[in-house]
Amino acid sequence: MKAKTAKESLTIMNELVLPNDTNPLNNLMGGRLLHMMDIAAAIAAQKHSNRVVVTASVDNVSFRNPIGLGDVVTIKSQVTRAFNSSMEVRLEVWAENIPNGTKFKSNEAYYTFVAVDQSGKTIPVPEVIAETEDEIKYYDGALRRRQLRLILGGKMNPDDATELKALFFPEE
Amino acid sequence: MKAKTAKESLTIMNELVLPNDTNPLNNLMGGRLLHMMDIAAAIAAQKHSNRVVVTASVDNVSFRNPIGLGDVVTIKSQVTRAFNSSMEVRLEVWAENIPNGTKFKSNEAYYTFVAVDQSGKTIPVPEVIAETEDEIKYYDGALRRRQLRLILGGKMNPDDATELKALFFPEE
Amino acid sequence: MKAKTAKESLTIMNELVLPNDTNPLNNLMGGRLLHMMDIAAAIAAQKHSNRVVVTASVDNVSFRNPIGLGDVVTIKSQVTRAFNSSMEVRLEVWAENIPNGTKFKSNEAYYTFVAVDQSGKTIPVPEVIAETEDEIKYYDGALRRRQLRLILGGKMNPDDATELKALFFPEE
Amino acid sequence: MKAKTAKESLTIMNELVLPNDTNPLNNLMGGRLLHMMDIAAAIAAQKHSNRVVVTASVDNVSFRNPIGLGDVVTIKSQVTRAFNSSMEVRLEVWAENIPNGTKFKSNEAYYTFVAVDQSGKTIPVPEVIAETEDEIKYYDGALRRRQLRLILGGKMNPDDATELKALFFPEE
Amino acid sequence: MKAKTAKESLTIMNELVLPNDTNPLNNLMGGRLLHMMDIAAAIAAQKHSNRVVVTASVDNVSFRNPIGLGDVVTIKSQVTRAFNSSMEVRLEVWAENIPNGTKFKSNEAYYTFVAVDQSGKTIPVPEVIAETEDEIKYYDGALRRRQLRLILGGKMNPDDATELKALFFPEE
Amino acid sequence: MKAKTAKESLTIMNELVLPNDTNPLNNLMGGRLLHMMDIAAAIAAQKHSNRVVVTASVDNVSFRNPIGLGDVVTIKSQVTRAFNSSMEVRLEVWAENIPNGTKFKSNEAYYTFVAVDQSGKTIPVPEVIAETEDEIKYYDGALRRRQLRLILGGKMNPDDATELKALFFPEE
Repeated sequence: MKAKTAKESLTIMNELVLPNDTNPLNNLMGGRLLHMMDIAAAIAAQKHSNRVVVTASVDNVSFRNPIGLGDVVTIKSQVTRAFNSSMEVRLEVWAENIPNGTKFKSNEAYYTFVAVDQSGKTIPVPEVIAETEDEIKYYDGALRRRQLRLILGGKMNPDDATELKALFFPEE
Repeated sequence: MKAKTAKESLTIMNELVLPNDTNPLNNLMGGRLLHMMDIAAAIAAQKHSNRVVVTASVDNVSFRNPIGLGDVVTIKSQVTRAFNSSMEVRLEVWAENIPNGTKFKSNEAYYTFVAVDQSGKTIPVPEVIAETEDEIKYYDGALRRRQLRLILGGKMNPDDATELKALFFPEE
Repeated sequence: MKAKTAKESLTIMNELVLPNDTNPLNNLMGGRLLHMMDIAAAIAAQKHSNRVVVTASVDNVSFRNPIGLGDVVTIKSQVTRAFNSSMEVRLEVWAENIPNGTKFKSNEAYYTFVAVDQSGKTIPVPEVIAETEDEIKYYDGALRRRQLRLILGGKMNPDDATELKALFFPEE
Repeated sequence: MKAKTAKESLTIMNELVLPNDTNPLNNLMGGRLLHMMDIAAAIAAQKHSNRVVVTASVDNVSFRNPIGLGDVVTIKSQVTRAFNSSMEVRLEVWAENIPNGTKFKSNEAYYTFVAVDQSGKTIPVPEVIAETEDEIKYYDGALRRRQLRLILGGKMNPDDATELKALFFPEE
Repeated sequence: MKAKTAKESLTIMNELVLPNDTNPLNNLMGGRLLHMMDIAAAIAAQKHSNRVVVTASVDNVSFRNPIGLGDVVTIKSQVTRAFNSSMEVRLEVWAENIPNGTKFKSNEAYYTFVAVDQSGKTIPVPEVIAETEDEIKYYDGALRRRQLRLILGGKMNPDDATELKALFFPEE
Repeated sequence: MKAKTAKESLTIMNELVLPNDTNPLNNLMGGRLLHMMDIAAAIAAQKHSNRVVVTASVDNVSFRNPIGLGDVVTIKSQVTRAFNSSMEVRLEVWAENIPNGTKFKSNEAYYTFVAVDQSGKTIPVPEVIAETEDEIKYYDGALRRRQLRLILGGKMNPDDATELKALFFPEE
């Protein structure tokens, strides 16, 4: 299987915040944004793997400022690294109120997807070639984030998470 | 402000997986489940605070087995602990195919909410009284999860995360 | 087929009233509530029969106070009695504005479902064991409500509706 | 307030059954049909009263044959009679699979609406003038159905329901 | 294949403008109206052909006045003419604010549909019999509109569009 | 008001075709695509004008191949030219089945929007600066398309449509 560049999976999605997406303060509900992000990330993972993909996990996501009704949400998603049949996708989310001329970065996030065949069985995906400085940074960090996922999922002993340990407690 | 028991916020939600919730394999999309979970968690946070609440963050969520079209998703949400104006909510998610007689736990998750007034300004919430053994365990763990959130959000130095450190280096 | 207790079918559903559920006064539309109730009742009927179920009828439903945008609708559904392949499900609906601290019972209702196999053919369901005082009352009343349904559907002569007649006109 | 003919409120609605409206057998869910019917009935009640209207009740509805994905649902709604601020609306529902050339009457139903002003307070509506033989039959029957609604809602003593009694004891 | 009258395909659709259909000025979005119109037109084309139909094109549509939240949109659709496997459908759209007593014609439009079999292959449809003066006018105009569509789609040389030319150069 | 380049309004939207977007052949319904395109075009018009915008018209759109369930629809929209308070937006639509490795251009289209203030009154927008060869071609063609719109809307005499006439019948 031939490796593919990270850039080949780049996906940009623009969504208009509609009334049903909002809470009683007329702001986008966090869960609805997580839903939009999942679709944007799945498209990137499909582009990388040319396979049907299913969401395996989402990493910690923090929301900053409220996003209002009628705002445009722009989501940029790109695969950072592949591990056998799984792919980590990095997302950046901006919110823009165009008539008011305000725009801010809402949040970043990492979703993980698994490529499957028509029967739902996992299937290997190509390696990712990181080219830019940022892509290399995200590629390298993917190992650390994966260790954290495994520890939080009870599938790795914290002591074995050497990458993560080095990040949190570099001096030890 | 009078403290409230964790149990007072207990919320149970049942949702039927409809066609638009599913991917081409006829399974519930992860993002749609994150959306359902956000609503279930928001109701629990509302019950605890008697306030309008907004999603502040979601912790790492891993999805196990696929949930099919027509399955019933049961979400149980309950506030674990409060920190000034923020509340951590623990969720447990089951999926059940009733005609087939299959049921499994899909995942657990922690969402954090902030209570706000009508202008969107944060506002303090009552303390949580943990009563059962499990509630006490989740209450205690909330501090560690909060440190992890703060580190991941770049708002805390890992060295100050004493609770989290104890998890990684239990022997020290 | 082994009888099952009424309690085994108990289902609790919480729904947040979203903008698209509301009329121009910002209140939940009756038809949307009937839709939510149908899903809650179908889940209870599925739990009792472990079958795919289809809605056969809904009895008279009266709505009292308006339910507002952002309110939480809580629906409790439970099978009351089975008749061959059909099941009567009792629903109780509450509406709660949590930040305002108001909660009221919106209405009660009875839906009837039929269990079917994959080809859509009706199929027998287990008997219901009523245990509590309330469950026994609903079990007994099911016969009377069934007679009313049959009369209204033109499938029973009013003169043969002995149960119903006795209720409406006990002295005669 | 000038009386209006029943015909002035006649409303015809055609809806295509979409995937999200269906159950796992690919048939229209009863609750979704009740939702469509509520909207068709509300439009008829609006036409009669020229007011915002809210659903007060739905009478017993029975569903016959299943309605499939892609079928066209045709709903005909018309006000039958007014009582102060409330209006009874009669609905007839057909389902048609046009490519297959099949069409059948799914069900009839009666919904009751109340006209309200902008603050939600009830407000009187015009009388209904029944003109055709059918309209007169529905106008006359409205009294009996109203008594049944009041009895079932615990607001009328069965003994006072003279119209309804005549149905059960026609020979007296 | 026996020709069918234009009237046999007449379809009337009423839709209530719901919050999610609206823009930040609380008015129906043009794209949502185009979506409703497509469904109304598809039903008319199905009625004429008794086939599954797919949208082939929409002609220029201009929107006049804004249609508000809670308004009733009435769409009247009818097949004007058939060309082998394609059908032109004429739509008229009204918007009505019933409580305010305002009603206006929003727009007219022409959609074209193609009849297909279960594999998606085009399949011939019956001729249309235009009966009323209007139906004959729309039947005759269909040829001119078809030429414009073909020119705009790059499938016809303007010089061959004799019907259309006559519109631009009536004096010749 | 300072003119803005066409490129500043460039908007890319990716949408996943979900079950409710499809017809009984599991293909995207034309009306749903027109709805997606309206949102993508509105965002481009907002970006150019920094105003709330409303859809004024859509030009003739032809759909070619069917777009399937689960496909990714990519819409690229950009303002071509402004006329006082109105803007023409050009759209290009691609459909991609990523797992199958198929991708094709579905269609092009032109939507026109009007910028309005909060009361819905039209308000002038900046001129468009066309930079690339394509942008200049679209800018020039906008006049001709506008004449066609005006003629079709009965607001211009075909004889005055000099641009359009020259295109259709260059030799006369």
